[in-house]
Order: sequence, then C-alpha cells, then structure tokens
Amino acid sequence: MRSTSRLALFFFAAICLCQSCGRKPDVREDFVTSPNAQIGQSYPMVNSEGRVRVCIHAPYALSVKLDICAVKYPLRRVDGGLWIGESAPLDEGFHYYQIQIDGASMPDPSSLYYYGAGRWGSGVDVPSPDQEIYEVRNVPHGQVREIRYWSDTKQSMRRVNIYTPPGYDQSQSKRYPVLYLLPGGAENEDSWIQQGHLAQIMDNLIADGKAEPFIVVTDNCIMGHPFDWEEEYDSIITEDLIPMVDSNFKTVPDNAHRAMAGFSYGGFQSKWTTMAHPDLFSYVGFFCGGILTVDELKDNQEFTDGIRLVFVSYGGNELNGSNVFGIDEGVDPRKETEALKEHGVNSVYYVSPNTHHEWHSCRRSLYRFAQLLFKTTT
Amino acid sequence: MRSTSRLALFFFAAICLCQSCGRKPDVREDFVTSPNAQIGQSYPMVNSEGRVRVCIHAPYALSVKLDICAVKYPLRRVDGGLWIGESAPLDEGFHYYQIQIDGASMPDPSSLYYYGAGRWGSGVDVPSPDQEIYEVRNVPHGQVREIRYWSDTKQSMRRVNIYTPPGYDQSQSKRYPVLYLLPGGAENEDSWIQQGHLAQIMDNLIADGKAEPFIVVTDNCIMGHPFDWEEEYDSIITEDLIPMVDSNFKTVPDNAHRAMAGFSYGGFQSKWTTMAHPDLFSYVGFFCGGILTVDELKDNQEFTDGIRLVFVSYGGNELNGSNVFGIDEGVDPRKETEALKEHGVNSVYYVSPNTHHEWHSCRRSLYRFAQLLFKTTT
Repeated sequence: MRSTSRLALFFFAAICLCQSCGRKPDVREDFVTSPNAQIGQSYPMVNSEGRVRVCIHAPYALSVKLDICAVKYPLRRVDGGLWIGESAPLDEGFHYYQIQIDGASMPDPSSLYYYGAGRWGSGVDVPSPDQEIYEVRNVPHGQVREIRYWSDTKQSMRRVNIYTPPGYDQSQSKRYPVLYLLPGGAENEDSWIQQGHLAQIMDNLIADGKAEPFIVVTDNCIMGHPFDWEEEYDSIITEDLIPMVDSNFKTVPDNAHRAMAGFSYGGFQSKWTTMAHPDLFSYVGFFCGGILTVDELKDNQEFTDGIRLVFVSYGGNELNGSNVFGIDEGVDPRKETEALKEHGVNSVYYVSPNTHHEWHSCRRSLYRFAQLLFKTTT
Repeated sequence: MRSTSRLALFFFAAICLCQSCGRKPDVREDFVTSPNAQIGQSYPMVNSEGRVRVCIHAPYALSVKLDICAVKYPLRRVDGGLWIGESAPLDEGFHYYQIQIDGASMPDPSSLYYYGAGRWGSGVDVPSPDQEIYEVRNVPHGQVREIRYWSDTKQSMRRVNIYTPPGYDQSQSKRYPVLYLLPGGAENEDSWIQQGHLAQIMDNLIADGKAEPFIVVTDNCIMGHPFDWEEEYDSIITEDLIPMVDSNFKTVPDNAHRAMAGFSYGGFQSKWTTMAHPDLFSYVGFFCGGILTVDELKDNQEFTDGIRLVFVSYGGNELNGSNVFGIDEGVDPRKETEALKEHGVNSVYYVSPNTHHEWHSCRRSLYRFAQLLFKTTT
C-alpha cells in the first residue's frame, strides 16, 4: 500500500475541491441537452459558447475530470455525490471524450457511444449552423443494411454497411452508381453511419434534388487496436468487396459509376486504391486526408485520363496549425489541388469553416462531394 | 466537505485492499477473452466455471467493484494501477454489468455496449454448449436494415430494424411471411440485433433447412427511461408499422403469414396485440414473458379459432424462484400452456436449461419458435 502518497493525494484533492465549489462566473448559462445524450439523460449538455458540460454521480471519488480535446477539465463536487463541470469553448463539430475518475478513463454513462480512437466510447457534438444537413426529416428514406460477406483474401467473414437510396427496392430495372466510403484511422464501418450521419445526409440531398440517388458502401480499411493498416486492403476491396456489391446490388458495374472517398487515413487509402485501379474508379475524395500533386499525376497517365473529379477538403481550424494531416510543412493544399486543373484533371477544394480534423468536417465534405458525383454519367 | 467520513472510508478501503491482495485459491485459472470484449481488448474474460473477470486501470481509486447479477464483487489492486477481480460462477447466458469506481457506476471501457436496463452499457456472455446457434458461419446471409418511417400516431419519425432473409433481393416475385419481434422492458430495437443475434440465428436456421425464410421486424414497444410503456403501441403497430412494412417489403399481407413474439414485457405486448387483432396474426410467442390461460381464450373466440401456435418459454433457472415473471405464485406455466390444447389451440412449452430471465433464454426461444412458423401456410 502506498498509503502515504494516497493520503497526500486525498488532501490535495480536498483542497482543489474547496477551491472550485462555485460555478465559474464567466460561463454562459444556456446549456441544453446534447443529441448525443442517451434517451432519458440530461447530460452531456452544450452551451452557446461551445462548452461541453457533464455530470457524474461519484459519491466517494477524490477527483473527477472531463477529458476532451486533449485537455482534462476538473469537475466540481456538488450535492448528492454529483460532480459537474464543463470544458472551455470548443471547436464546432464532433469530439470524442471520456470521464476520468480517480485516474480511470471511462465512458460517460450518460452519452451515446461511437467507434473512434480505437474503441467504443463517448462523443459529443458542438453544434454548427448547418447541422440541418443531417437532420432526420420526414422525407423518403433510404436503408442502411448490415451485410456479412466472405472474404477470400482474409479467409474470414467481414462486415460492411451499405446505404441504399429511397426507392431502391421499388424498381427492379433501375441501376445505381456506388460510392465506397472509408472512415479515419482507428474508426470502423459504423463510424460513417453513426457520427457521420451518412444516411441522413444522403436522404436530405436526394429529397432536395441536390444529389443523384446512389449506393454508399462504408467499410473499414483499418484493423486492430489501437491502429494497424489492413495490409491486404487493396485485394479486399478489388477482389472481394466490389465483386460482392456488384453481384448482390443493382449497380452500374463500371468505373464511370464508381467513386471512392475517405476521412483522414481513409483518404490515403482512397488515393492508393483509385490510383492503382483507374479501371475501377472515376471519382475520388480526400476528406481531411491528404492531397494529390501534379507530380503524382505525371506518373499515372491512365488515372489522369480517366479521373472525373479529385475532391480535397480540410477543416479550417486544422489548417491553422503547423502540422496539417497528410501535408508536408509549407505546402498549400488549395494551390496543389487547383494546379491539377492545368493538367486536365477536374478538381475541387473545400475548407469547412470553424471545424478541425473531425466528423463535422467530414459530413460537410460528403455533403459537397455527393452533389458532384455521377452527374455527367447518369 | 465531509472530510471526516471520507477519511474513514479511505482507511476502510485500505484495510480491505490489504486483505484481498492474493488471488482467490478456488478460482479455476482457465479464463479466456469474451467475444463481448472490444477489438484489441483482453477483458472481460470468462472461465469454465462461469466466472466473469474484469480489469480496470484506476491508479488513484480507493475501491473498484464489478457489479453483475445484483452483486458487487470487489476487485484487487495489483501492479501498475490495475484492479482485477471476478464474480462468483454465474448462470449461462447474457448479463448486463457495470464497473463501480469509488461509488460511480460506469460502463467497462473494455467491453462492447448493449442497450438494456434503460441504457447503453456493458454486457458479457457466460458461454452455453449451444452457442453455435448464433455463430457467424460462411453460409448465405440475410441483411439487417435500419429503417426510418413516419408514424402518424406519434407524429414523428420512428426507427425499426428489419431482417430480410438470404435471397430476398434476388427474386422479385417471391413474397415472405413476417415475424414482429419485441425486446424486453427498457431494451430497444437494437437489442434483438446485438445481444439477441437475431440475424445469425435466422441465417443458420435457414441454411440448415430448419426454418422457412421469413422477414423479421424488430421494434421497441417501450419508450423513455428507465421504463415506460409506449401507451399508443397498439395504434403504432397496427396503423403505422404493419402498413409500412407491407407496402415497402415483399410480404404476404395476411394473418396466416404474420407472427408476433417478444421477450419479457415484449411478451405481454405480443399477447395484447395478437388477442386484440386476431385478423392480423396467427402465431404468437411469449419468451420469458407470461402465459395464456384457458380463461383468457374463452373470452376471445375469434383468436381461439384463428391462432395456429401459442409458444411459451422460460429460462429454467428463473422457474426456481418464487417470483416468476408474468405468473402468479403457484401457477404452473407448463400445465397452463398444455391445457390450451384441449381447447383446440396448438401450444408449445419450452424451458431453456441453466439460464435465467435473459437473452440466451430468448435466443433459444427464437431458435425453436422460428422452426414452427409458417410451415403449414407457405
């Protein structure tokens, strides 16, 4: 027993508690329950400054913290064994978080759970003005289908989620293009469905006449924990997944009707796959996931001739730092993307305002990318 | 600050810790990682006695417990800030659990999460000899579809999961019967998919030629938290859900091809719905969810004439107690169910060996009920 140091910790915690009993005077008291709270729960809450407030019942704890966006915010002990507290104002968008109780990192028992950072855990959205892009509206809805299929490459069953657009089942003759869509590193095939709100974004775009109806296959190119590339992913997607989709769904099975995109590391994978298989894909998107340079085009004439769109996006706030995901220091992703046009490649660059390297940047990227897909070919 | 009582608690905890440093000598050391662990995690583990072992990193905690099956088992502090410990041998089957850290009830960060007990939280299976009934095999697989639809009754969107059998998309002309399947109280429309392994049970039964292919709609008749009946459920299912399913899926829309069943409170709801609407249903199942008596039949001639199967099941271990769910004390569910036959109603009674009021009893009940459905009518 390290009772001396533990006793010291106790008294230290007691002092900290006494110092922080009052509510901070500068916090705007307009918190509302987040849509990321479980049914029947009041917390997590978010206020108009973008602060996240949590509340934990921990009657015998010495210290409880909210661990979000790489900062641990101490909670205040209030009546009834409750601890309550809030973060500083955070970037708009979706943030994974955890609760730290006496040094143990735990999911918040009041929040919904999302797969990211290599685990199922808590997540919360700081609202954006355009969150209606993924609102569940009373419009025709597509279906999200959980599919199990045999992978010869892996010699095992794999799981994938497939969005079929509204009306898919009603016509036997109509065939659809397909977008293959990947999450980021240490996320999985559920991430685009849950925190990505893929189905709601697509339903709304189609209802508003802004996107062609198409199928979206959302897979996982990362395996293991905390992070490990699926080394055989090229073979999985080209030899197992695409043939499975084309033989079980009403697709147009050619490269003019096939796109690929991904978030973060999923953007890297999308680049590798589409550049290695220009016979399979005509559209590619990197959502906060690197760029394509003119130099890379020069080595790949078949890709350059066939590609109909290269879409590159970043969260505005992630560009402020010196260490931008997938870009060497000093390289301007807008300039690199626009330079592609001079080589005959249709390119679009988008910056998501006020967001970082996270899912609201992704949702907005999908919202824009989807409107550009398959319009000239269907 | 209640520093005196907190200090007393600290010393009490210190004494308890010292007493429990060693591993209990009578625990069989053949623990293996549970399929309920998250990818990359070693815990929770289960041994051949049915003990559940968890491991939590909580370096500054005074007390950590495993809270499972209504008992709180203290964990032992070991090196590196880890706490480890196990339950007594538990019943076979699925158990919700939580971790208690200095009085805070939290999900286990290493486990997968399931909706039950009115919240998303941890769950773990103590294996049964017949768990292969829900193994993911390399056989033709159906699809689990997440559906959003408008409910006139609720004046809001509702969410439901629908299993379509293998081959559903391949034939435009084939039409299928439908089972409406409910979870228990404080569970939801995901419970049959996740802890219930509905799709795997159906895929395997169909692959083995033991069940007719049919559609399964799994809905939620309970709203709110911790528990509240969906008062308008009769109207939701008969006026909103069934018409939506019959107009969007390839069903045979008559009562000979429609069944309803549910777990626990969902069994009650299935009885109320089918007895109120014999024009809509011909098969009903109560999985650990009450019984039907001859007296109730006498009041409902249309139901008595039309019903093709009443299926009643219980977990063997829940019958050992004096307080059996949905039955008055002293009533024998087997006798009551068999008595239905004398009144011309086909009835089947099933007891799941070595399980309690939980999901393995349910899985086995579905496995048997499904084999009896729609055989005389398709």
